[in-house]
Amino acid sequence: MTAVGIVMGSDSDWPVMRLAAEALAEFDVAFEADVVSAHRMPEEMIAYGKQAAGRGLKVIIAGAGGAAHLPGMLASVTPLPVIGVPVPLKYLDGMDSLLSIVQMPAGVPVATVAVGGARNAGLLAVRILAASDEGLRARMEGFQESLRDQAHAKGAKLRAEAASLGS
Amino acid sequence: MTAVGIVMGSDSDWPVMRLAAEALAEFDVAFEADVVSAHRMPEEMIAYGKQAAGRGLKVIIAGAGGAAHLPGMLASVTPLPVIGVPVPLKYLDGMDSLLSIVQMPAGVPVATVAVGGARNAGLLAVRILAASDEGLRARMEGFQESLRDQAHAKGAKLRAEAASLGS
Amino acid sequence: MTAVGIVMGSDSDWPVMRLAAEALAEFDVAFEADVVSAHRMPEEMIAYGKQAAGRGLKVIIAGAGGAAHLPGMLASVTPLPVIGVPVPLKYLDGMDSLLSIVQMPAGVPVATVAVGGARNAGLLAVRILAASDEGLRARMEGFQESLRDQAHAKGAKLRAEAASLGS
Amino acid sequence: MTAVGIVMGSDSDWPVMRLAAEALAEFDVAFEADVVSAHRMPEEMIAYGKQAAGRGLKVIIAGAGGAAHLPGMLASVTPLPVIGVPVPLKYLDGMDSLLSIVQMPAGVPVATVAVGGARNAGLLAVRILAASDEGLRARMEGFQESLRDQAHAKGAKLRAEAASLGS
Amino acid sequence: MTAVGIVMGSDSDWPVMRLAAEALAEFDVAFEADVVSAHRMPEEMIAYGKQAAGRGLKVIIAGAGGAAHLPGMLASVTPLPVIGVPVPLKYLDGMDSLLSIVQMPAGVPVATVAVGGARNAGLLAVRILAASDEGLRARMEGFQESLRDQAHAKGAKLRAEAASLGS
Amino acid sequence: MTAVGIVMGSDSDWPVMRLAAEALAEFDVAFEADVVSAHRMPEEMIAYGKQAAGRGLKVIIAGAGGAAHLPGMLASVTPLPVIGVPVPLKYLDGMDSLLSIVQMPAGVPVATVAVGGARNAGLLAVRILAASDEGLRARMEGFQESLRDQAHAKGAKLRAEAASLGS
Amino acid sequence: MTAVGIVMGSDSDWPVMRLAAEALAEFDVAFEADVVSAHRMPEEMIAYGKQAAGRGLKVIIAGAGGAAHLPGMLASVTPLPVIGVPVPLKYLDGMDSLLSIVQMPAGVPVATVAVGGARNAGLLAVRILAASDEGLRARMEGFQESLRDQAHAKGAKLRAEAASLGS
Amino acid sequence: MTAVGIVMGSDSDWPVMRLAAEALAEFDVAFEADVVSAHRMPEEMIAYGKQAAGRGLKVIIAGAGGAAHLPGMLASVTPLPVIGVPVPLKYLDGMDSLLSIVQMPAGVPVATVAVGGARNAGLLAVRILAASDEGLRARMEGFQESLRDQAHAKGAKLRAEAASLGS
Repeated sequence: MTAVGIVMGSDSDWPVMRLAAEALAEFDVAFEADVVSAHRMPEEMIAYGKQAAGRGLKVIIAGAGGAAHLPGMLASVTPLPVIGVPVPLKYLDGMDSLLSIVQMPAGVPVATVAVGGARNAGLLAVRILAASDEGLRARMEGFQESLRDQAHAKGAKLRAEAASLGS
Repeated sequence: MTAVGIVMGSDSDWPVMRLAAEALAEFDVAFEADVVSAHRMPEEMIAYGKQAAGRGLKVIIAGAGGAAHLPGMLASVTPLPVIGVPVPLKYLDGMDSLLSIVQMPAGVPVATVAVGGARNAGLLAVRILAASDEGLRARMEGFQESLRDQAHAKGAKLRAEAASLGS
Repeated sequence: MTAVGIVMGSDSDWPVMRLAAEALAEFDVAFEADVVSAHRMPEEMIAYGKQAAGRGLKVIIAGAGGAAHLPGMLASVTPLPVIGVPVPLKYLDGMDSLLSIVQMPAGVPVATVAVGGARNAGLLAVRILAASDEGLRARMEGFQESLRDQAHAKGAKLRAEAASLGS
Repeated sequence: MTAVGIVMGSDSDWPVMRLAAEALAEFDVAFEADVVSAHRMPEEMIAYGKQAAGRGLKVIIAGAGGAAHLPGMLASVTPLPVIGVPVPLKYLDGMDSLLSIVQMPAGVPVATVAVGGARNAGLLAVRILAASDEGLRARMEGFQESLRDQAHAKGAKLRAEAASLGS
Repeated sequence: MTAVGIVMGSDSDWPVMRLAAEALAEFDVAFEADVVSAHRMPEEMIAYGKQAAGRGLKVIIAGAGGAAHLPGMLASVTPLPVIGVPVPLKYLDGMDSLLSIVQMPAGVPVATVAVGGARNAGLLAVRILAASDEGLRARMEGFQESLRDQAHAKGAKLRAEAASLGS
Repeated sequence: MTAVGIVMGSDSDWPVMRLAAEALAEFDVAFEADVVSAHRMPEEMIAYGKQAAGRGLKVIIAGAGGAAHLPGMLASVTPLPVIGVPVPLKYLDGMDSLLSIVQMPAGVPVATVAVGGARNAGLLAVRILAASDEGLRARMEGFQESLRDQAHAKGAKLRAEAASLGS
Repeated sequence: MTAVGIVMGSDSDWPVMRLAAEALAEFDVAFEADVVSAHRMPEEMIAYGKQAAGRGLKVIIAGAGGAAHLPGMLASVTPLPVIGVPVPLKYLDGMDSLLSIVQMPAGVPVATVAVGGARNAGLLAVRILAASDEGLRARMEGFQESLRDQAHAKGAKLRAEAASLGS
Repeated sequence: MTAVGIVMGSDSDWPVMRLAAEALAEFDVAFEADVVSAHRMPEEMIAYGKQAAGRGLKVIIAGAGGAAHLPGMLASVTPLPVIGVPVPLKYLDGMDSLLSIVQMPAGVPVATVAVGGARNAGLLAVRILAASDEGLRARMEGFQESLRDQAHAKGAKLRAEAASLGS
């Protein structure tokens, strides 16, 4: 069953947001992706949020840039956890996106990740699902092991390269 | 007929937003004021925006702080001009409010004023109404004259005070 | 009759500001465009502002970058609504332009849009004119419908693309 | 069983962080609270994170200020979702805390809330737990209804107060 | 003869700007002080700038806050050196004032001092006048000697106080 | 006689700083240019500042980037007016350079221009020299006229281009 | 023998900088403290830096605010490690002080600590001295143990306090 | 014996961090370089820090970007001086890295250098080692002489180039 909905204000956000999708696919978590614009289709956006839990979604990942209202608006109409991804625009390096998403008023939280951090949004969704799914949690632990292994491998390469500098 | 709707996310914004109301009252522009929260009553917020033009409103003034979504969301559901007032919160001096309001995507404009600049929101609404109301425009010109007169009076006082410093 | 004046400090701002002109042209709103520099021709700038209402203009759109004084100075000499467009320069991503335009003192409002947001300046001018023009308002509503349709179409394309990622 | 661990770098963070505890208590979610300092007791911090899932915790809420390393470090040693609360210090309005928490590298997400937004951290934890607990999700929906009711009540009061201003 | 004109947008800037006047008085440089608002009396402001050189002024000091346009506008209508003082307002710590003053386009310079740095504006005016006045330059050198002497005296006191701490 | 000294911390600043030299050359103001590094040759830097007035210099223009100490240090050892040019480095868009130059303590002013604003530094030096040189002041007024003429010419071109857009 | 010199631009920095002195005193490291102003006594400042190593100092701690030039200038005239403390001023929360100190050009490093972080400057000096002093290093390790113990004690207190909240 | 450990969170930081290694190599200071990721291998990171002093290291240089936790975490488990290098990422120009490294709480200092300032990290390590090594200190003084000589040479070239501009 589709567990995660990935939505964004425009398909121009997809090159950033697809990293969330890829992370979910790595963990075999079923997801859907769609354009749901807070500003261009506000009523459909509200409907998407209101129906999400009933449709069986467990987590929503929403990406937006600039005056980024999508994650917070969805959070206001669903009881599900909503993860916000600040998409950087041409100016301001995503600082506007970040503040528009993270600075939500008391009562309506958005779980915000780094500017452009869609891959972490996917991984956070996996952790949330894994909170009640031991198998998935074990896979997350395995993933964390693989990060460690990659870091070790990079270290080995770097030590060799640095050795050539002298010392 | 009520020409301007002043809305805000919480009554805690009223000490800032009442300056908009007072400016409108000085120009005998009829207004209404209400709490319309994007995050706490999103469906009523959408309804407010959709019905505004039909009810005869000409301009909406919306104040919000932090991840300030109200002005932009209203602008997405009404063809009326929407004026956004960034209300400063306890931290960040309103920079989050400003960016959340002003950085709207192409297609959905919000007319943004200064951080805490609700009085100017009221005056901007008057200018917008005056664009098709010669009498109101004349009053705005008179108001601008009075600003000039006040500045002159302040200058006279200051010249006297400065003279005592020497020179 | 020409309803909107689009002015900017230099012709180097035109690549940004022409988006305002194009938006107005889409709505068949008559406009003029000119270089009116607050710093290089201050007296002509004052004259432009003082004569604007008398010449029949209803709205002024002013773009400027850096220490961007044009929108605010025009607002001080006209009773018309003035829309300010922060033009980004080589450094600081338009943050200087934004603050120089939006942070106007009480008494003299400027309706500020996003950094580089000239298209929205044009659309905001249309909304202002539409406040007293039902036909124009209907066209703005039609435009908002078209935004919705485009978003739906993008969503369809995205759903297809995302489906190929797995899940 | 204790579902949520609330940890912070120092007891001086408690006045902010207790809002998370209070939110959890409102939903009858069992929690523990402790001082776990990344910088003053790094090994205990690592141990806390490594043992959290095994002890039955489902979510960790971590608050820290300045160079705020606690949420990210815990996220690196647990597969559980970690919620980060940027605690504002005397200078910089929490911008340092926010960036230190939210800008995590790909692989290790932290679910970040607003500066000082500990209440939302608690509510986000409830949403995460509710993703697999229908009863809790119904309570969250009820809570959202109560936010709406409070906003309506505030609106009624504000309308009365604004009416006295004129118009 | 009056050599320096100190102007500001409002008498509320005087508590900051009087430090410029006091610095000039210490050097027996004749000055005038006045309210000259770019936004509230733009034509008088232009006139002030255009007449300044003819009236014998050698330097203009202009203070303003927020969207601070006064220094730059004066610089555009006078060939005299204009010193700009960013006056901090309630929010943003004067960063808006600073950027609005310092980021002038090529062609029209403003000599900008620190946020709230009106005393240095006065001292800079003295240095400018002293560039063609050897007597005044000698007094500036004497002033710099006195700064040194004061710093030495403070050092002596501090050494005594620090000695009591141990070491 | 050489009236203006243009100094910078490194020859890598020259592409920015030569704009100051070119502005001076346009006004036939004699200048010298040199590398005087606060951090790499502090004693020569002190000597340069101390000897500047005695050698007949009237104004110093100093450019520096990052932790930009050169303008302020020179101002501490000369009674001449010192103009500071914030040179932007690879990161931070010159904000570090700007704050390091403009935020001088009371007693030691630096006349700061825009980030990368070396041309204005040259023009400001001309204005300072013109304060006691009527011929030079007339040339500055002529220069300001030429700015106006150029702006008019750009306006004519722009009006033609905009006309083709419709309206 | 005096191992550490603590210097600052003004005695007004002492309330911040004495925390460095107190940290050194806790470790029985001999220090001196003095006012050495880069801007008010530049030649004595240069002399202080040049003589420091010869006088037996091992580390210099320098605090300054705003356009904070003292740490970097000292680093340019001594081969000793220089620790810079950004002292926050009335505006800008020390961001100007921080950037002025930390953004040094390649060749001349300053070891920068947090805004207002003078206690850490003292502790960093101890670590530097301890790099070649095993006894001192053991004391630093003991100090780190005591930080851990204090954190544990705070945790015990907090656990008790939190238990009363419910759960 | 290896005196300095250079560590970084990923081999993608090496192009920045190798400048530290090169500086050390210029002074014939033996170093090692490795990938030690706070987030991907937290336990090895703790172990690296805890063993560093015992293995004979005198200084640790740690580079990291974004939510940069490595320098501060190492500082919490070693009594050695730790130098932090803020590595700039794709967005935010390294401001997040800088604040995450420099804003450490009282008790655990990190000696922070400029954004991307790895060369200065190497030179700072040399100064720290030189505090107890007269030969190394003499070499540092020689290095500072060479900086001076290079600046002089650049000045000679610049004077020639500037002379061609006129004056």
